[in-house]
This record gives sequence, C-alpha cells and structure tokens, in this order.
Amino acid sequence: MMKAIFAAAFFCLVPLAAHAAEPCLPCHAEKTPAAVAQWQGSAHARAGVGCEKCHGSDHDKIVKGEAKVGMKVCGPCHQKAYQEHRASRHGMGLHSGWGCTRNLPNRKEGECRFCHEKGDEIPRSEVQCARFLKQSPEMGEIGCNYCHSVEDACDSCHSKHMTDLKIVRDPNSCAKCHMGPDHPQWEMWQTSLHGTLNASTGRKTGPDCQTCHMPKGTHNVSIGVTMNSGGVPYPAAKAEPARADMVRICSDCHAPSFAKRELERGDQVRGQSLAILKEAEHVIWDLNDRGLLDPMPENRPPHPLSGPRLVTDSQMLYEDTSHIERLFFKMKKYDYARTVKGAYHQNPAYTHWYGNAELKMDLVDIKGEASRLKERGKKGETKAAAPGAEDELKVLKNKFDRGALSEEEYAKAKAKVLEKMR
Amino acid sequence: MMKAIFAAAFFCLVPLAAHAAEPCLPCHAEKTPAAVAQWQGSAHARAGVGCEKCHGSDHDKIVKGEAKVGMKVCGPCHQKAYQEHRASRHGMGLHSGWGCTRNLPNRKEGECRFCHEKGDEIPRSEVQCARFLKQSPEMGEIGCNYCHSVEDACDSCHSKHMTDLKIVRDPNSCAKCHMGPDHPQWEMWQTSLHGTLNASTGRKTGPDCQTCHMPKGTHNVSIGVTMNSGGVPYPAAKAEPARADMVRICSDCHAPSFAKRELERGDQVRGQSLAILKEAEHVIWDLNDRGLLDPMPENRPPHPLSGPRLVTDSQMLYEDTSHIERLFFKMKKYDYARTVKGAYHQNPAYTHWYGNAELKMDLVDIKGEASRLKERGKKGETKAAAPGAEDELKVLKNKFDRGALSEEEYAKAKAKVLEKMR
Amino acid sequence: MMKAIFAAAFFCLVPLAAHAAEPCLPCHAEKTPAAVAQWQGSAHARAGVGCEKCHGSDHDKIVKGEAKVGMKVCGPCHQKAYQEHRASRHGMGLHSGWGCTRNLPNRKEGECRFCHEKGDEIPRSEVQCARFLKQSPEMGEIGCNYCHSVEDACDSCHSKHMTDLKIVRDPNSCAKCHMGPDHPQWEMWQTSLHGTLNASTGRKTGPDCQTCHMPKGTHNVSIGVTMNSGGVPYPAAKAEPARADMVRICSDCHAPSFAKRELERGDQVRGQSLAILKEAEHVIWDLNDRGLLDPMPENRPPHPLSGPRLVTDSQMLYEDTSHIERLFFKMKKYDYARTVKGAYHQNPAYTHWYGNAELKMDLVDIKGEASRLKERGKKGETKAAAPGAEDELKVLKNKFDRGALSEEEYAKAKAKVLEKMR
Repeated sequence: MMKAIFAAAFFCLVPLAAHAAEPCLPCHAEKTPAAVAQWQGSAHARAGVGCEKCHGSDHDKIVKGEAKVGMKVCGPCHQKAYQEHRASRHGMGLHSGWGCTRNLPNRKEGECRFCHEKGDEIPRSEVQCARFLKQSPEMGEIGCNYCHSVEDACDSCHSKHMTDLKIVRDPNSCAKCHMGPDHPQWEMWQTSLHGTLNASTGRKTGPDCQTCHMPKGTHNVSIGVTMNSGGVPYPAAKAEPARADMVRICSDCHAPSFAKRELERGDQVRGQSLAILKEAEHVIWDLNDRGLLDPMPENRPPHPLSGPRLVTDSQMLYEDTSHIERLFFKMKKYDYARTVKGAYHQNPAYTHWYGNAELKMDLVDIKGEASRLKERGKKGETKAAAPGAEDELKVLKNKFDRGALSEEEYAKAKAKVLEKMR
Repeated sequence: MMKAIFAAAFFCLVPLAAHAAEPCLPCHAEKTPAAVAQWQGSAHARAGVGCEKCHGSDHDKIVKGEAKVGMKVCGPCHQKAYQEHRASRHGMGLHSGWGCTRNLPNRKEGECRFCHEKGDEIPRSEVQCARFLKQSPEMGEIGCNYCHSVEDACDSCHSKHMTDLKIVRDPNSCAKCHMGPDHPQWEMWQTSLHGTLNASTGRKTGPDCQTCHMPKGTHNVSIGVTMNSGGVPYPAAKAEPARADMVRICSDCHAPSFAKRELERGDQVRGQSLAILKEAEHVIWDLNDRGLLDPMPENRPPHPLSGPRLVTDSQMLYEDTSHIERLFFKMKKYDYARTVKGAYHQNPAYTHWYGNAELKMDLVDIKGEASRLKERGKKGETKAAAPGAEDELKVLKNKFDRGALSEEEYAKAKAKVLEKMR
Repeated sequence: MMKAIFAAAFFCLVPLAAHAAEPCLPCHAEKTPAAVAQWQGSAHARAGVGCEKCHGSDHDKIVKGEAKVGMKVCGPCHQKAYQEHRASRHGMGLHSGWGCTRNLPNRKEGECRFCHEKGDEIPRSEVQCARFLKQSPEMGEIGCNYCHSVEDACDSCHSKHMTDLKIVRDPNSCAKCHMGPDHPQWEMWQTSLHGTLNASTGRKTGPDCQTCHMPKGTHNVSIGVTMNSGGVPYPAAKAEPARADMVRICSDCHAPSFAKRELERGDQVRGQSLAILKEAEHVIWDLNDRGLLDPMPENRPPHPLSGPRLVTDSQMLYEDTSHIERLFFKMKKYDYARTVKGAYHQNPAYTHWYGNAELKMDLVDIKGEASRLKERGKKGETKAAAPGAEDELKVLKNKFDRGALSEEEYAKAKAKVLEKMR
C-alpha cells in the first residue's frame, strides 16, 4: 500500500511540481497541446526537466528558429550516449551525402571544410547534404536533411517531447532512414531469418537492429562494421578489431566459428561484387578516353566539385550525365550496396535477386550501350572517328594521363601502335 | 448484474430473433457458412438487418449477379457517410483510370459520357477502368476494378458481411489500393515518422491514414487535398480552403506555422518536379514534330480515344508506343507521383531516392534516347532526314499547329530559317 | 493444485531428467548457450529427444560439418510430414534454380543426374542451385542455398533448436524465401484483401499462407497449384484435380462458384500474359536468325549447359547475354511471374502495375531495341548486312532448322523469295 502511494506520488506529484514552475505551459497548453501533453507524459517531466532546460528562455530566438535543440543541448545530461554517438558514423560526416569523404583516395585538399569547422570532428549542422547535387532548399530539407541531420539531432531517433524508450528500442525507429533503393537494411532485415523470427517470437530469439548494432545500448552504431558508408573495405588494421567486435556480438546466439564464417562470406561477396563494378567502371572510362560519351563531360553542366570531368567515385551525379553513367550510378549506389549489405544481413533475395543479378544485368546493359556508342564513333559521327593510329595514340595518352597505364605500359602500347603504322 | 444480463440479451437474444426471421439461413448456413457466420457476428445482425434488406428477395436476380449491393443500397441507412463519400474523390470518376478527366484542359466534348449517365455525378459502375487500355475483361476485373469500384461499393473498405469497424479503422484497409509503383502512400506512410511512431506507440502519437484523411470519421477522404489525382495543382480558389482544412487537421499535434511550412515545402517540390517532367515532355514532342519517334504514332495502333496522334497527358498509354514514350510514362505516372506524394507524406526516401533521383535519371535517359533518334534521323534512315531549311520549316509549322509556338514566335523563327537560306 | 504441480513437473522435471542424460550439455551450455537454451525450451527437450538423437554421437563428424541434420534424420519420427513434404514442390528439385527441369520440352538426356542420384526422387543436397549461373561458392550459399535447401532441410522453416510451432504457423516464416522480384507472394498477400483482413482481424477471417497452401497442416504445399514453378500450366489431367482441391479449400469461406470464377480469371490472365511473352521471345529469335544480336551467342562465353546458342527457356542466363535478352529475362522471370501470381493471389497492384503494365512496357522496349539492331544491320555493320535474297534465304533456313517453320511453310517462304529474285 505504501508502495502504491509512493508510485502515485512519483507519477503525479512530481510533474505537478514541475508544471507549477513552468512559465511556458499556460500559453502552450493551448497553442501546442500535443507537445505539452507528450512532455507531461515523459521521463523529462517526471525528472523535473522543463521547457527552458532544452529550449532556453529567449522566446524571440526560439520563434526565429535560432534555438535548435541540438546534440550539445542533450550532451551535458547524457554524457555517455553523447560520446558514443560522436564516435559513431551517426555522429560524423553524413552531411556529405555519401558519407564523410575522408576515406576517398582522391579527396581534395581542404575538402573537410565543406562540413567541418577547423579542429571539430562533428560537422556543422547547416551544411547541405546536397552540396554537390542541384537540390532545391525544399528537396534538401525533406529529401536529405530529414535523415542527414542525425549527427546533431538526437530527436532524429528519440522523437521530440516523448522521450519514450519504447520508441527507440523499436526497430521501426531505424526504418525511416535505413530503407529505400540505396540501403534497404530495414527491408532486408524484415525478410531475413532474424527478422522473420522477430515477427513470430520477439526480440529474444529474433534479433533486431538494436540487438546487433547497439549492443548493451551503446550509441556507437558503427561497432563491428568493416567498410565505410560507400562500401569500401576498411584497411585490415581497422577492420580486424571491428570484425572481432561483431563476432562477439553474434556469439550471444551463435558459435563464434559459425559467425566468423558467415561474415567472411559477406567479405567474399563484397570483393566479388566490387570486381563486377570495376569492370563496368573501366568500360565507361575507356569511352571517356575515346571521347565517346554522349554527351561528353565538357559538353554539359560541369560537376560542382570537379568541373567538366568524368566523376564515377562516391560523388558521382545522377543528373546532367550520359545514359551510360546513369546506368553505372544505379549499379554502384543501389545494386552494389544491396548485394553487399544483403550478404552481411543474410537475406537471400537481396543478396542475389535485388543485388548480384542486378549487378550482372547492369554490366550487360553497360556493355550493350558501350557497343552502340563505339559503333556511332566508327561512323564518324563523333570526334573520335574511326580509330586510326593517331586516334589510338591519343586514347593511350588519355589513359596514361589519368593513371590507368604505368609509364612502362604506356611505352609498350605506343610502340605497338607505331609498329602497326609502318 | 442487471447490466450483464441486458448485454447478454443484446448479443444473443436479438440475433437469435433475427435468425428466426431469416428465410435464407437454413440453406446458406450450409452453402456459404463463412458469410453466415460473419453476418451473425456483425452489427447488422445485432440490429436486426437481415439478408433481404441488402440483397433483396429475388433469388434469381441475386444468382445472376444482378442484385449488386451498391452504394445506393447502403445509402438510405447510412446517409451521412453516403453523402460524404459521394462528395469525395472516392465517390467520383475513379473508373476513368487516371481519375476523372474533368480537369484536363484538352478533354473531349461528351467525354463524361464514358463514365457518367447524364446529370449523374456518380459514374456508372459497369464502366471499365481500362477503357483506353487494351485490357482483357479478366485483367479489367482483377487489375482495375478490385480498386476502381470504390465509388459504388462500400464493401471495398468495409468488407462484405462483417461490418466490423476494427477493419476500416485499421490503415491496412487502405493498403490494398493505395500501394504500388504509381501511388505507394501505404509504403511511404509506414516508413515516415508518422508510420514508425504508429508502429511503436499506436494511433495517438503516430497518426495513420484515417487520422489525417478521415478526421472525425468523415467519409470525404479528399479533405485537405490540393491537387487532382493526376498530380495537377488545384486553382487557388479551390486549393486555399483545402489547405486551411489540412493545416487544421495537422494542428491537432503540430503548431499551425510548422504544418503550413511543411505543406508548402510539398507545394514547392511539386512545382519543381513538374518542371522536370515538362522538360522531358518537350523533348518528346520535338521528336514528334521532326517525325523521329520510333515508331511514329501513324505507324502503330491508334490511341483508342485520340487516334493516330501522340498522347502524353493523363490518358497516355504504356503499350503500342515508342521506347522514349514508355520512359516518359514511368517518369510521369510513377516517379513524379512518388516525389510529390512522398513530400506531402514527409518520407525522405520516397521524395528523394524513389522520386526526385528517378525523375532526374529519367530525364538523362530520355535525352540520351533523343540524341540517338536524332542521329538516326541525320543518317537519312527516317523521313525527317538531315534537317535542311525545308525540313526545319515543316518542324516549325508542326510546333505552331499544336500551339507550342505563338503566331509571333512562329513568324520570327521562320524568318530566321529563311535568312539562313539566302 | 494437483494440476499445477503436474504441469510444473512436466515443464521442469522431465527436461531436467533429459539434461541429466545429455553428455553434450556441460560443454555446450558454455560454447553455444543460445542453442542449448532454445532446445531446453523446446518440445524435443520435453519429449526427451536429446542432442545425439539428431546430431549423432560422432563429434569429429559434426565439427567437420559431415553430420547435417537433413530430412532423413527428422523423417523416422515425423513420418506423415516427411512423406507430404517429399511429395510437394518443396521436396523436389528446387536446387535446379528454376525448378526441376522434368517439365521442360527440350531437356537433355541424363539432365536429372545434375541433381538426383539414380532412382532417388529427392535431389542430392550438395547440388549447387547455381549450376548454370557463374556463381561463386559464397553467393551460392547465401543467394541460393539459404532458400534452395528446403528439400532436405526441415529447419528451413522450423528453425533449428526451438521447434516452436508458433514460428511455422506464422506467415512470416514463408516470407524469407517467397518474396523479391521473381516471386513476391509475401508482398502480394500482405496487400491483398486476405492479407489486410489478416492484419486487422487475424487468421480466422484473413487467411494466411498456411490457410490455403497447408490446409489441415499438410506439408504438401503444392496442393491446388496448377502450373510448374516456371509458370507453365499443367496438362488438364494434372491441373483439373488440383483445381478441384483448391476450390475445396476456398470453399471454407467462399461459395465454390465464386472461388472457381476467381481462379479461372487467374488462368485467363496467365494465358494472356504468356502470349505477350511469346511475342517478345519471337522478336529475339528472329534477330538471332538474322545474326543481329549484340553480341551473338557465338561471340560470348557459351551457355554452361547449351553451349554457344541462344537460350530463352527457363535456364536462360542474366549474364553474358545481349541487352535485349536481359530485357527478356526481366520480362519472363519477374514481370510474367508477378502478373500471374498476382492474379491468383487477387492483388490488383501486382497483377496490373507490377505485372501486366510492366509486361507491356517490356514489349515496347524489346521492339524498340530490335528496331535499333535491325537498322544497325542494314548499315552493313554486322554480318547480316542489307537483307538481299541470299541473306533472306539463310534466315529462313535458320528458322526451319530450329523448328519455327514447318517443311511446308519453309518451302512456300523460299519460293516467295526466289520469285522476287527473278
């Protein structure tokens, strides 16, 4: 009985005390009743954390949207989560669209400054994810920033005023960003054995996103991941401890040897898929060397970062390109990602049909289009014309200039063409 | 205690009484036991509404399928719902496939008669949705009428004999029509913040279809919608009050200023997407002017309504067209719809990846195909041939004839070509 | 009270007794605690079925992966399920990728041996599903065998140590294989009326996979199916009793006449879809006869089973083919399957938009590509060259040789060409 009274006191009296101290409530109970009600039912209210604590007391600033409740507002009270989040991929560089560019071999001097203030690992929150896409501000907001503000916005997952752990412990809270053609982790989990067991037997025997990616409630969601967000494998020194972490997580249910073998299968599939991707990329660069893309980069709006040049790395565009580059965009961003993530998430249909089969069909389509473009070239319709020796020498020079041929290979190939000329 | 007895009486005695009065039961308890059992558990049975009330008493007519339980059977008892339904998009003209054509600028005289009897706002139920597609009767039934009979069939949502409000209050009841490549509202809601909150916390904090589109249980599902079913914005006079309605609905949870801004973002995305669509449409009409479509409309089965002419409005076909028109069909019907509806439903992946990115890639593909077709034209393989002055004049005339050039623009352009000739 | 004690004894004492007898537990409680815990909570443990009963006692063999718990381990105890499973499509030949080839008209002598040991109806379990695709072992495991080991692995559906009937009675257990681009039965059920009613009212009024395909718990999942796994209709003698079976199943809820009509609509849609497919196939074979595929089968890696020849039957490839064959692959494997299965599962969007509309757009694309390839041929870029009489005669010979023309038709067509020559 005493316990019941104590509970009543905890749930009723404490919030009432907090309410009494709240100068915002009288107005906001009328203007934003849902927000007030949600806060009133929240752990924040129960702990006496009121409006001012998060929003500040400068009403003008709040109304102008200048008092955003970012990560640094939550951090002081939630230190552990804050530090884990900052150390994870969620906390870094997602604003750059295809993940932080720090792992790109050909990144530009000072490119960090697009996102980061000097010395700060956390990107500035006003950075547009769409910086190298021609996005309107509205599309940037809905299409990019609804997800790519996670590094500074705890409410991306925790929702705004409810702070109900039920919400963030539900894998649905991950779904709103981790779905779609480019990374359908949500979809592939749901129809994997893990997901289907979850549906029939719950979390204990059917692990969900949080089970494997936030073990023991850590906010470092990148634990155990062995590649960057573009699907490029980490170097061994970084990959091996990460792999050991993930095997430990799997071992809660599986024999470590089984877990290791399954994850290594994923590595193999990743390597094999990358090789198919590279074959297609080579076809496109060869066409570029021969001046056969339609249109060529110099005859279309320049790439915002790289200028009038072919770009096929993780900053490649899906607009203002040629048809064959568009095919490669789908291949790289969608089909490669689905194959690899499908394999690591043990989903047969995503690994094979939505992944590997699409990759191989993309290659068929890309080769088919290349054949068409080359024939067009032969007929003298484009600058490259019928590949006489002079043209062939120029193509070789292009390949050498972009580093596709070593000095030695270049010399040999040139000699061969000159031989033929005589 | 008295209350319990009364309840028992209500649930058991009344239906028994009704059963007793039911001449159909003895046979149908054997022939269609599920239907009988569902009716027996229904509110209809409890209220004494028996078989005859809805199906009539002419057994021959019923067996021949001539006693359909349409809207007019339900209307007299359910007046409010009936009137609201008739006033909504559900109640009007969906049979025309891409929505009622009343908003099309180039609709034909008397086109209403395809669907409506004179003076009747409600379309005739026997109208084929597929009237301008070459559908077989079977495909028309399963592929079209399973959804596009909603205007006359209350059981589209309410199911047949159960009349259990639990069914229609579940957003799943909307899923069976509002999904798929052309309007995946179901999919985009599920992975929006609204839908993911609904999964973890239920309707109160995670609104569903009914919350926003059937507020207070109205059957006018078009409330607050600001465009026709083809995605064309309403004129301001019609759009503004609709917008005010929707902002009022959002204000149950959000600050009105926030709701307004979000919806206006949707308007912006709609306008931007329409511009991309128009650019592609222009490319196709230009090819048509030059006689370069493959095949040209005159060399293929004519459009059932418009004859041997290019059709790119909401009655365009996905069959018996050229490859480039097929690309445009996907762009318009699928990708434009997903971008716009994705934005209004606040789903980032549908707005951006399934929407905007696809729209832009479609444009790349359409321009690529146009380039191929023009080159083909240049080589004298098609009637248009190398564009000499004479050809150019003909193309200009085509553009003028279809209203793409004003008289003044036409004169100027002609003068320019003639200038060059001299 | 006595009953409660008895229950406690059943759930605690019996397993303890079993545990006592279990020599594996002391080690495995530490090494694979989840497996042990799942077994401890299982019906097997309650019935005293311990590790050795399924895994044998040769630990070396188990560790080497040579003591697989296949169907023949489960069979002796579960005779009825075993026999039903063997008689069903689940129990036969799925390893061949596109289903057992026994129904293919052009199957090769001895082709059974790829999968079956002589005299054994059940395929050998080590057979690669990918035998005619260039799959890596890893892709074969994740992408193929995760599903295509069902014939020998009861744990495909029953999971490994839990043996909880709740799992296999949940339609989610079917989802992990019956989803994806090639046969999205899971997706189409979910958004059909059956699936949406299931979501709101449960199994009784919303039937699930098991309701219709495993009536009364049978393990013969092929009951009532009237086509092979490639979508080819069974001959009447086999189809008619199967249809009668399915109508009986439907009749638990529907009037038999209604069920029959709905299923016959599916048959009609299947026939109509097959005709569209055949039209496209004809276009491709005609290009092959004319030497216009790019590349031709003789200029690319040969088909693993058929050599350097065009293959468009159920063993066609999605790699090392031409663009137009790739289009046909999508048409046949994805769009035809979706149309037909969508119709039988009464899902409008899958039947029409994901099915029929795609089939018709595929045909537009295939005809468009054929037009391009023919024009290329005309310009003398390929061996076929401008179709002079000599070429035309060769094309006719090709058609005759592959059986597309009867002797009489061939003679007539030849005479016509020779006539023109004079």
